[in-house]
Amino acid sequence: MKLNEKGLLVIISGPSGVGKGTIRKALFQIPDNNFCYSVSMTTRAPREGEVDGQDYFFVSREEFERRIKDNALLEYAEFVGEYYGTPLDYIDKQMESGKEVIVEIEVQGALQVQERIPEAVFIFIVPPSKKALIERLEKRGTDTPEKIKKRIEKAEREYSLAYKYDYIVVNDEVTNAADRIYAIIRAEHAKTERSIYKYYKLMEGKE
Amino acid sequence: MKLNEKGLLVIISGPSGVGKGTIRKALFQIPDNNFCYSVSMTTRAPREGEVDGQDYFFVSREEFERRIKDNALLEYAEFVGEYYGTPLDYIDKQMESGKEVIVEIEVQGALQVQERIPEAVFIFIVPPSKKALIERLEKRGTDTPEKIKKRIEKAEREYSLAYKYDYIVVNDEVTNAADRIYAIIRAEHAKTERSIYKYYKLMEGKE
Repeated sequence: MKLNEKGLLVIISGPSGVGKGTIRKALFQIPDNNFCYSVSMTTRAPREGEVDGQDYFFVSREEFERRIKDNALLEYAEFVGEYYGTPLDYIDKQMESGKEVIVEIEVQGALQVQERIPEAVFIFIVPPSKKALIERLEKRGTDTPEKIKKRIEKAEREYSLAYKYDYIVVNDEVTNAADRIYAIIRAEHAKTERSIYKYYKLMEGKE
Repeated sequence: MKLNEKGLLVIISGPSGVGKGTIRKALFQIPDNNFCYSVSMTTRAPREGEVDGQDYFFVSREEFERRIKDNALLEYAEFVGEYYGTPLDYIDKQMESGKEVIVEIEVQGALQVQERIPEAVFIFIVPPSKKALIERLEKRGTDTPEKIKKRIEKAEREYSLAYKYDYIVVNDEVTNAADRIYAIIRAEHAKTERSIYKYYKLMEGKE
């Protein structure tokens, strides 16, 4: 029996190249989960194999900037010349229906969400070592050397922001990291601040 | 990879009759756990089948009061005319060696521990309903009707103290409750306040 029936907003963040996307995929493989996927929106070009509406919503700069103006994004960031953001629309509805909404975003975006929704769960994914992160960024074949250099510099600036998050999870092995995030989600539901209201109602014998 | 290498002190508490002991036993059945057992000390008589040094250390009032005076107990409480307490000795050593020390105690004792060791993890076990708790207390065949009445009154006073704990876990089904506690322990290790020091050392490349 879960005392908190509303779903959580779970922010999976961390420096670029740390494996956030792979961890999110592993998380969704966990049996009997009630996770729901928040698809991000971006102005960057699709990489090979990426599907619109599944990996990202791929939109034009004009379209993206219209949404910024309409305040229709949970957060957004400009990164290496491209916009990335999270459409706000169905997130609330999913949480109300008891789904855990898993959002994978860059550090800049996560900190925007934290100002807007401090009760969300903020998880910072880190590499097992600095060397491992740099290797992963260099191996990514889709960017120019100049872009890779920018990414490494940005990752180095982002290291120091870990203290702003609720949890730090090491991506030493993808399934370990996903299991730990699942444990965090279960634990967060049991937190007194989230569960005490329903508990007192139970003890009154009203439910 | 766990960023926090020190074991946690995990306090499992809640009103008498809620099933704390059964949950603790289920917790120790979880494979590959590194839990360690803190055996309580009491002046009450052993129930049938209880083994000294395993279920409790059964001691005299004189012996117990000497330990109170020596400050050699993590906490203690007098309950229905008998003392219950937790010997302090090996707890610290176990935590230093990376073991999670699981302590099962009454509400009064848990709140004493909270003053002394606020960084411990405080879990309040609750029944699925008030009716379920009263039934469990009545079924316990080892006490006199007078003692049962005292237990129910005490449990009712303790309901309202849930807000002082970090987590509330419903004992609807023992293995569910134990699994949720295991998730809490894993999540607590990933908490930023416990893991950031080791993380920054990793990022410096020192480890």
